[in-house]
Amino acid sequence: MAAWKRCVPRALLFGNTVRFHTGWLLDMISLAEALRCIGETIRPAPIIETPLADACGRVLARDALSDIDSPPYDKSLVDGYAVVAQSGAARTLRVLEEITAGRLPRVAVDTGSASRIMTGAAIPRGADAVVMKEDTEDHGQTVRIGTSHILPGQNILCRATSFAAGQTVVAAGRTIRPLEVGILAEAGVTRVPVHAAADVSIIATGNELVAADTAPGPGRLRNSNGPMLTSAVRAAGAVAHDLGIVRDTMSELREAVARGLRSDFLILSGGVSVGVLDLVPRVLSELGVREIFHGVRIKPGKPVWFGRHGESDRRIGVFGLPGNPVSSFVGFELLVRAALARFHGHHDWQPTMASACLAGPLDHHARRDAFYPARLRDSADGRTAEPLPWRGSADLAALTHANALIHVPPGNETFSDGHRVDIVII
Amino acid sequence: MAAWKRCVPRALLFGNTVRFHTGWLLDMISLAEALRCIGETIRPAPIIETPLADACGRVLARDALSDIDSPPYDKSLVDGYAVVAQSGAARTLRVLEEITAGRLPRVAVDTGSASRIMTGAAIPRGADAVVMKEDTEDHGQTVRIGTSHILPGQNILCRATSFAAGQTVVAAGRTIRPLEVGILAEAGVTRVPVHAAADVSIIATGNELVAADTAPGPGRLRNSNGPMLTSAVRAAGAVAHDLGIVRDTMSELREAVARGLRSDFLILSGGVSVGVLDLVPRVLSELGVREIFHGVRIKPGKPVWFGRHGESDRRIGVFGLPGNPVSSFVGFELLVRAALARFHGHHDWQPTMASACLAGPLDHHARRDAFYPARLRDSADGRTAEPLPWRGSADLAALTHANALIHVPPGNETFSDGHRVDIVII
Repeated sequence: MAAWKRCVPRALLFGNTVRFHTGWLLDMISLAEALRCIGETIRPAPIIETPLADACGRVLARDALSDIDSPPYDKSLVDGYAVVAQSGAARTLRVLEEITAGRLPRVAVDTGSASRIMTGAAIPRGADAVVMKEDTEDHGQTVRIGTSHILPGQNILCRATSFAAGQTVVAAGRTIRPLEVGILAEAGVTRVPVHAAADVSIIATGNELVAADTAPGPGRLRNSNGPMLTSAVRAAGAVAHDLGIVRDTMSELREAVARGLRSDFLILSGGVSVGVLDLVPRVLSELGVREIFHGVRIKPGKPVWFGRHGESDRRIGVFGLPGNPVSSFVGFELLVRAALARFHGHHDWQPTMASACLAGPLDHHARRDAFYPARLRDSADGRTAEPLPWRGSADLAALTHANALIHVPPGNETFSDGHRVDIVII
Repeated sequence: MAAWKRCVPRALLFGNTVRFHTGWLLDMISLAEALRCIGETIRPAPIIETPLADACGRVLARDALSDIDSPPYDKSLVDGYAVVAQSGAARTLRVLEEITAGRLPRVAVDTGSASRIMTGAAIPRGADAVVMKEDTEDHGQTVRIGTSHILPGQNILCRATSFAAGQTVVAAGRTIRPLEVGILAEAGVTRVPVHAAADVSIIATGNELVAADTAPGPGRLRNSNGPMLTSAVRAAGAVAHDLGIVRDTMSELREAVARGLRSDFLILSGGVSVGVLDLVPRVLSELGVREIFHGVRIKPGKPVWFGRHGESDRRIGVFGLPGNPVSSFVGFELLVRAALARFHGHHDWQPTMASACLAGPLDHHARRDAFYPARLRDSADGRTAEPLPWRGSADLAALTHANALIHVPPGNETFSDGHRVDIVII
């Protein structure tokens, strides 16, 4: 039980300001190291084919190629008249036919004639420009053209301008958004190769927990982590299974963990700090989950546990998050979300660090990388982050007013208004 | 048919550079006016009660109040020893009991004693501070306390610090994210009053269209708008019904529109510009849909149509988007998305304008508010927007590389690198 041994005090230093040094801070790894471990452990999910209608939000696993030119023919971009491009005074042309979208032109246009044409319709032979309806005067059999300069190619989208048959229209690794759905439809890719969605089980541990719809008796607390993590997992594009509350006994934990290990990921909350009933690392070890790290130098979120079960073909990522809801949330945002993103095939799976200017001072005292709740706002001058008042890592209520976390490396400093800081958007 | 009348040329000005003036540009309204119309027409959806597990992403429709204090008792924030706060040299205390989370303390602590306590457990009578386990040395029956200053309240979260019974924990109008799910669970709000999700029907019109899984014959195009808009509607938190492709005949259109009017919103693509087969406004009028606007001074997206059907109790918003996929997408992002957000109860339902510095020059020539595809990047100095090369409003392929639109008011100007511009994030 390496994780337990690490927690034994190493140096006992007494005095007015010196605190005990424990193995904790010495053994803990940095956030960057933790993310490196996650990147090495978690492999992108198997590739599945999904109908185009369900592909949005997933990551394309192979380059998507078009089976046709787009557009498949020279096409009018406007409603108007297909003509031969030429300069000169306004003039009247004979109208040959009307080409609506979906119909093929029948006759060729020459310098004395024009064909009425609709947006999306095919350009007739002879014509090399389209004059917008708004620049013409319709006289039935003839049309008066109001513009004097008509350039070749004007208002025409030539065949294969967007892409040609055989060309990659969306590259592997790209996240499929509505725009990508549109272009995949255009290219005829209706069975889309994507990385499968992760299947994630969530367990909240603790003798003190009762379900959210129950009134907590003396010494009891409601389970907020279970519902919160379940929602967070779904919002990350995975399939969540909330396995509910499990008591702090070896047998109950063993049964629940064994069930959770049928998923791609298992997330436990509670039971990973150093208390006598923190049985989670012990049960995980018994069931063959190998510890990769226990403890990350972040505040809040320090006692987070990460391990893996099984080998390369069926490898399950296991996270033990602190029972404290704020620590649990931060651990999820910084580490679990990254693991899910890596599994889902995102190339940029690590937490995205952005930057903003402080709107208000920030007092910072931490021996670890600290994350402070903040309200991000967009102004005409750029982005500002207002540090929110909060009473530390048990204050979930304050965190609900935040839409970002300000990240500050270890140190003691008061940052003033306007100082540029790193942020993680939540 | 007001919409048709408006399109009749008003002034016919010939010459080298002067184009016909049509009713179009004169009658078209601005984006701000269009959004005002949408705000007046669309009312927030009826309030429904949803299970907490399904509430994420919805907007809370009534203040959510807690039925308990949180925490419900004075609670330890760490694993350690509950003691009486005092200053002085390091000392050894008798250990009275072990209080695990979920168990109630049995005996009171005095200045000569301490109780071993776990994170989340209730503070015993007499004690007013907790010393972290890492600052102590455990000798079984006794404990040596290593810190000399123990402040009252240290490592204790007092009852009702987060919120008190009867207090609002999440205010009406807030979007429910995983954090809000957590705090609603803590407060016992497991049936959540939210605005219902919109039910949206999508119809792609056009004789030239074939389904995405079909090879388009001569003069035919694949329907990319249907799948794209369906995905966009789902991504906006609504329920989408893709009604497929409808031919440009009054009877087919009439039947499909009548079916679509059973939803809260109907979105049509194609058939709203000024061509001879643009039957959509005519059919909508026949079926009792009142036109509110037709044409907005935006580029791309100009011919967008908006109307409403029915009265206040059952009011249906109807959008006609241009057939061109890029225009259709921009019309959705700027107008339909806003209408859905308003229906879903979001207070900030209008498109969020942010700002960024240009990374590369931008040539701007437009008589309307123009939106250019751009790649937004976060750097240490703030946010930059790189204008992407594109071939105008038929170039959906280029738009798929964008994650933002740069918004520039009407004018002719070349903006250089570093210039601050407004952006809409897509």
